Amino acid sequence: MALKVQKYGGTSVADISRIKNVAERVVKAYDRGDSVVVVLSAMAGVTNNLIDLANSASKSPDKHELDVLLATGEQTTAALLAMILKSMGYSAKSLLGFQAGILTDMTPGKARILDIQSNRIKELISHGYIVVVAGFQGRDMNGDITTLGRGGSDTSAVAIASAVNADVCEIYTDVDGVYTTDPRICDRARKINIISYDEMLEMAILGAKVLQIRSVEFAKKYNVPVHVRSSFSEEEGTMVVNESSDMESVVVSGITCDKNEARITFKKVPDQPGISAKIFSPLADEEIMVDMIIQNTRSGGETDLTFTVTNDDFEKAKEISEEVAEEVGAEEILIARDIAKVSVIGLGMKSHSGVAATMFSALASENINIRLISTSEIRISCIVQAKYAELAVRALHSAFGLDKES
Amino acid sequence: MALKVQKYGGTSVADISRIKNVAERVVKAYDRGDSVVVVLSAMAGVTNNLIDLANSASKSPDKHELDVLLATGEQTTAALLAMILKSMGYSAKSLLGFQAGILTDMTPGKARILDIQSNRIKELISHGYIVVVAGFQGRDMNGDITTLGRGGSDTSAVAIASAVNADVCEIYTDVDGVYTTDPRICDRARKINIISYDEMLEMAILGAKVLQIRSVEFAKKYNVPVHVRSSFSEEEGTMVVNESSDMESVVVSGITCDKNEARITFKKVPDQPGISAKIFSPLADEEIMVDMIIQNTRSGGETDLTFTVTNDDFEKAKEISEEVAEEVGAEEILIARDIAKVSVIGLGMKSHSGVAATMFSALASENINIRLISTSEIRISCIVQAKYAELAVRALHSAFGLDKES
Repeated sequence: MALKVQKYGGTSVADISRIKNVAERVVKAYDRGDSVVVVLSAMAGVTNNLIDLANSASKSPDKHELDVLLATGEQTTAALLAMILKSMGYSAKSLLGFQAGILTDMTPGKARILDIQSNRIKELISHGYIVVVAGFQGRDMNGDITTLGRGGSDTSAVAIASAVNADVCEIYTDVDGVYTTDPRICDRARKINIISYDEMLEMAILGAKVLQIRSVEFAKKYNVPVHVRSSFSEEEGTMVVNESSDMESVVVSGITCDKNEARITFKKVPDQPGISAKIFSPLADEEIMVDMIIQNTRSGGETDLTFTVTNDDFEKAKEISEEVAEEVGAEEILIARDIAKVSVIGLGMKSHSGVAATMFSALASENINIRLISTSEIRISCIVQAKYAELAVRALHSAFGLDKES
Repeated sequence: MALKVQKYGGTSVADISRIKNVAERVVKAYDRGDSVVVVLSAMAGVTNNLIDLANSASKSPDKHELDVLLATGEQTTAALLAMILKSMGYSAKSLLGFQAGILTDMTPGKARILDIQSNRIKELISHGYIVVVAGFQGRDMNGDITTLGRGGSDTSAVAIASAVNADVCEIYTDVDGVYTTDPRICDRARKINIISYDEMLEMAILGAKVLQIRSVEFAKKYNVPVHVRSSFSEEEGTMVVNESSDMESVVVSGITCDKNEARITFKKVPDQPGISAKIFSPLADEEIMVDMIIQNTRSGGETDLTFTVTNDDFEKAKEISEEVAEEVGAEEILIARDIAKVSVIGLGMKSHSGVAATMFSALASENINIRLISTSEIRISCIVQAKYAELAVRALHSAFGLDKES
């Protein structure tokens, strides 16, 4: 007899027959005696179609009105699932974001949840209802509809799980859990049974697109146990939970690879105070997020300054850099687009030494040159040439003992 | 400087380019100095598609959840129009039913408007906004979404016009007004410039499907001037207003024809008290609406009892009648499906005598036999054989001087 929040993504509700499968899974839990709150995404592809429709209406669609438009996607799936559950003889009720009491700030397109006024959900649960909440959406203080950004339904689910004090928030998706690395790159990748919020955050940020980053932040903040699992199988997936001392016995939990970055180098800039500010302020003004920054001192009072940005921001960043180059006295701007960021992630790094050394040796033994290095408390990332990315991932996966037993 | 409510139907917002046309028309009024509240239907076909989707999810979709699903149609068009208006540089804001304060009863699928809490609309108007309201939808006392039934956006528009005390409620549609009769039947049909609510009600009920009946009832109750006009031309359409003494100078305003009825006759039933109750009670129990009822006394204490029902109800009504026939001692049940109801409508009937005589003569001169007659204060209807329907309409149109000058 648990209280479960179950979230189903777009591929799990892609058509009526799949929504019926979701209904079967929901009533299975309900029939076991669990209380169930279901949170749904829009049918796969629908959100993109609505965005295309908006773009055909306006070159730069008003973001508030885009929210109103996009919210129809989850409204549709929520109504359909509630209908199906009712026709199966169960008490069920759909709630849109505003009805579910999901109060957000007023930022259109990527609103943040401020509060969940969960009395309506709780009341329905207490009357034996299966509650079906339209994910991705909320309302702001004016009563206007807001949306939570890409993957926002994950955040809806975790926030609701926190508000109703659910025993678990199950995130149903088209993969059966979080893997030690991308199985398409490394066929020895293993499903991770349990992982900490912090490791999951590093994994999410670095491209293992299983969970929206903000939903993990939310889960961590309110200590909501999250179970990432497949809607197409009965197998257990990956539990994302608070870190425990047990976890640190595993040095590295996962390896990630991100090819969505490009590198820009200011060659031979004078090594003077204020140079960095001159370079990075105009980038910040354009809201370009700089990821890694490295400065190498050369002889003769000169230095090379290298940083990375996402591919989306690259052209703009390059343009700005070329404008700034002369001002700061750089000899030239070098660029590299064919790079990849390979990272090893693990809580165990906090207590184990030698992780960096193992990483560098593993790459060296494959003759992979490291261009940039950055670290956090539980992550080490290296920039390598893109062509070596997959090889690097496999080498590291093996070096840190992550390969599955064959 | 007027306050206008403009309602655009499904064909007027069928795609992005048509919604852009609507935007052009809206800003034309706004630029003239009018305040404009726009009420929109869903894109033509969308509501039916959503109903099909619901039917594929469930054999008998829950009506509350169907409301939630259908409401996405108007939400989509409202957001798109507001987007387009904003990208044209105007202040615009979409409001869904619940945001526009449209409070209804709790009847799913055909909720009745109880109240319009119009403060939000009024506030936006006072700040110079073009307000775009999703038609067809409201919210009940639980905060749940309701819909107002087929053509409900007309009712939304009239109700909002009443609540904000608009100077006029313009109903934009794909015809350029209300005609003296169906132009497809009679090429001499003329557009009516002005018509009373009561005449419009009779016209609407009898099949001139330009305006939803309830919207006209609403307009009459709150004395809202309604202007029915085409969204594809600049021409004036038909004003639907309170009756004035002027109007009675026109004897007959319009001729209608309805082929959606069938006739059932109980032949030779004993002319005793209680027989009618025995026949009509079981029909009422099945919610079958009986339209016309005629009883002819025969000699010998027997009578023939004839009534009409819509074609949708016919099979069920026939079945019930056959069950009842023996009980009431009827000799047999006669049926006729190939009938048509031809009606003349006009406020002038209140003060002019001889309308019935003119009608019967006109039909007689074409050798059209009248099977049943029914009347109201401003309408006379005759049932004729279906094959004579068009001829009857043209004969009456001419007899009452409605033919346009050629």
